[in-house]
Amino acid sequence: MPDTLTISLPNLPNTIGLLAGGAIGGGWAARFVLNGVNVRLYDPAPNALDRVSQQVNNARRAYSRLLSVALPPEGSLTLVDSIGDAVKDVELVQESAPEDLKIKQKVLAEASKLASRETLICSSTSGLRPTALQSTVTYPERFLVGHPFNPVYMLPLVELCAGEETSPESMNRAAEIYQAVGMRPLVVRKEVDGFVANRLQEALWREALWLVHDEVATVEEVDDAIRFSFGLRRAINGPFRMAGGGDGMRRYMEQWGPMLQWPWSKLSEVPGLTKDFLDKLASQSDSREAVSSAELEQQRDDCYVAVLQGLRSQGYGAGALIEDWENTLRARSPQLTSGEVAVETLTLQMPSDWVDSNGHINESRYLEVFSKATGMLEDQLGAQGEYKVVHGSYYTVETHLSHLGELFPGDHITVLTQILDADKKRLRIFHTLTREGDCKPVATAEQMLIHVDATSRRACAAKGAVRERVFELARIHAGIPRPARAGASIQMR
Amino acid sequence: MPDTLTISLPNLPNTIGLLAGGAIGGGWAARFVLNGVNVRLYDPAPNALDRVSQQVNNARRAYSRLLSVALPPEGSLTLVDSIGDAVKDVELVQESAPEDLKIKQKVLAEASKLASRETLICSSTSGLRPTALQSTVTYPERFLVGHPFNPVYMLPLVELCAGEETSPESMNRAAEIYQAVGMRPLVVRKEVDGFVANRLQEALWREALWLVHDEVATVEEVDDAIRFSFGLRRAINGPFRMAGGGDGMRRYMEQWGPMLQWPWSKLSEVPGLTKDFLDKLASQSDSREAVSSAELEQQRDDCYVAVLQGLRSQGYGAGALIEDWENTLRARSPQLTSGEVAVETLTLQMPSDWVDSNGHINESRYLEVFSKATGMLEDQLGAQGEYKVVHGSYYTVETHLSHLGELFPGDHITVLTQILDADKKRLRIFHTLTREGDCKPVATAEQMLIHVDATSRRACAAKGAVRERVFELARIHAGIPRPARAGASIQMR
Repeated sequence: MPDTLTISLPNLPNTIGLLAGGAIGGGWAARFVLNGVNVRLYDPAPNALDRVSQQVNNARRAYSRLLSVALPPEGSLTLVDSIGDAVKDVELVQESAPEDLKIKQKVLAEASKLASRETLICSSTSGLRPTALQSTVTYPERFLVGHPFNPVYMLPLVELCAGEETSPESMNRAAEIYQAVGMRPLVVRKEVDGFVANRLQEALWREALWLVHDEVATVEEVDDAIRFSFGLRRAINGPFRMAGGGDGMRRYMEQWGPMLQWPWSKLSEVPGLTKDFLDKLASQSDSREAVSSAELEQQRDDCYVAVLQGLRSQGYGAGALIEDWENTLRARSPQLTSGEVAVETLTLQMPSDWVDSNGHINESRYLEVFSKATGMLEDQLGAQGEYKVVHGSYYTVETHLSHLGELFPGDHITVLTQILDADKKRLRIFHTLTREGDCKPVATAEQMLIHVDATSRRACAAKGAVRERVFELARIHAGIPRPARAGASIQMR
Repeated sequence: MPDTLTISLPNLPNTIGLLAGGAIGGGWAARFVLNGVNVRLYDPAPNALDRVSQQVNNARRAYSRLLSVALPPEGSLTLVDSIGDAVKDVELVQESAPEDLKIKQKVLAEASKLASRETLICSSTSGLRPTALQSTVTYPERFLVGHPFNPVYMLPLVELCAGEETSPESMNRAAEIYQAVGMRPLVVRKEVDGFVANRLQEALWREALWLVHDEVATVEEVDDAIRFSFGLRRAINGPFRMAGGGDGMRRYMEQWGPMLQWPWSKLSEVPGLTKDFLDKLASQSDSREAVSSAELEQQRDDCYVAVLQGLRSQGYGAGALIEDWENTLRARSPQLTSGEVAVETLTLQMPSDWVDSNGHINESRYLEVFSKATGMLEDQLGAQGEYKVVHGSYYTVETHLSHLGELFPGDHITVLTQILDADKKRLRIFHTLTREGDCKPVATAEQMLIHVDATSRRACAAKGAVRERVFELARIHAGIPRPARAGASIQMR
């Protein structure tokens, strides 16, 4: 089979130059290096390389969780001694110097003088106009603004803004390169201070400051007001999207437009909602695919669920709130049952973000569920908390997982757990996973657990009450019919 | 065992009354009914009940995906003929009539006249002042604004705003009730038009309109500028949070404050950054837990990953972008070095949050790793992308996982994969996981995969080039010594 290690996409450069390695420059370094591009960094600060390397480490960690494919071989990160070294033989130079016109002009002047004529020169400025930055650039047609967002290796948007002398070819080439490293280039149609995203962010930021200034809310309360409400929307859609297609937009503006006249904002200036302007809004929305509002609603809900599930996995913000809510709900839902039957160790509902590329719950989630069930059993045996610290705990040494069906998001499942065999050190158990209202197993897992000493981490006998409960439950479960799959091995029959 | 189904939390009402069943009223109905509260709805519109029922259905579907506990028995939804019927014998009345002061005053006047004195009366108004609404309310001390966000059953924030005559007891009781149905009450400190969240939303909305009006960006571009950049931040944190604790806030304002003076926004008014105001911002931020910026960075990254993974599971927005990016990465990811040895399918570093209560990497993460390795093998066999859609893909039907050692955060691991047997439909493989610089296996996994048809989801023969590659690689691997554990079963020896 072909060795593609040497193949690199046509629109991906081999080497780029970075000027300044702060929060933004370091983020650029991380994104390019991990995408397999060599980076030549110029930053006179003494600890520049450490700070940038830390960002590359953060990004490597984040990508290993975010991406389901292996990253290509990493590019090199080289700290160089001068602007000249940084821009030599590179296809793109990204300047991320402090937001000071004079400083940036000086850096860009030297970089463009020393770089070869073909080298693209881009500035990360958050809001300075490209034409002003361009004034000191040699061959200014290859200069443009490529404005990213912190953390650069995480947030995909990069705003491209042309100055008066920027060539279309330069804009296209830059867009290609940014896209090749996983970013979303957005071309700003008019040269304005702050471009698009920062104008929007600034408007929000100013209003937030007013609310604190006027003591309507505290800093914490302003943040919460956003992240528990429309902030969740903004990860999914911008404010226009909610209106839907062309006519939807017209109706939306007719309904909400008048409110813009209300004194809701310190900042009262607002464009007149003339017929021409409404037509423009509507026509620009017409281009969007027509989706029935019912479809829109469910698509919207699925996105909310997915975002909330994500935050919940971090125990953060609106996600943490859901856990609190569930605890109040759990207080009103049924308890585990034990006795002359297998122990019901777990009931759960399949989250929507457990789906894999086959459109069903991924295999690894089954072991995540069975692992939780094993944990519940250990809790019932008393092998938990204090006991784990003082004596030891059960480690899984083998698992035989069998998939007999598929699970999908929203499915309610139950896990029944049976002890097959037990001795002083070992516990052999069998989990059966069924879908609510269907006794046919969807999956089973046979597991061998070994009791391990808390300090030596070597196998040792279970202690006192735990051992007694293990033997007691094993005795009870000896009365339950043995699952057919117990003791099975994987064979091509 | 006590039957907990009948227990209802003290702060949860048995029945509430809803006035008007539009988008907001219907959302309230869904949230309360699914939390086990009976709802009496008054809405004269002919199809009111259908519209509201549709929202309850949407919410039932969304909750089944969002929550991992079973919902309590649903409350009843009853359409009644008059405001009097809706407010009779209920603990809370929620008014969601059109945003028109006169209409709301009329509805609230009648509702408060007919409700018992203890009944809380709340308005869902998006911005009208409670004191104005309160003027027609009988016993006005039990009236307040409880402003939710659409969809009410999904977004947790509810803004509580007191009018001049509202009693603290009413505010507390309302907060208890909203919290009991999974919401996040936020008390607005001063009575202002638009409260907190809508003032912030309006500021963003106005600036968005200006950008389209001035042709800096189209409707679509404004939305993209948000959802591919800071919109992703806002689901996690508000704008202040990024600054971190007190001193961080001071530094943040010193760094970014001056930019507020730049002409970045059409709406140029901004509070003066006086010493007093900066002190207020800093002191209000002091209350936040002090986290080192390194910790902040990783917590932030984990939240971004979680949110992006969520959107990706929906193939939506920034999540869809990641898939495109992965496809370009896949084209460049290191090809499996096949030959007379097992293929190297994966190298990975163990993330710190994969640890379980035993202080080592949790068992389920091993299958997560082996599942990725299997995915890489499938990519190599060409069972990916187009093929998955048109023909089919390999499903894992059995896994035998053996733990021979422990893994800890930061460990670099490699997975070697060997094909044991293959026929037209089946693929039996063996993964060996080793820690970097140590050939002794830490874990192994034997897996049986079956090729499943894309449409029927039934077992079927692999097609064309994929089948050829399977047999080719199987032939090569037949020359590799068979792992000792292949075909083993779990036994108490």
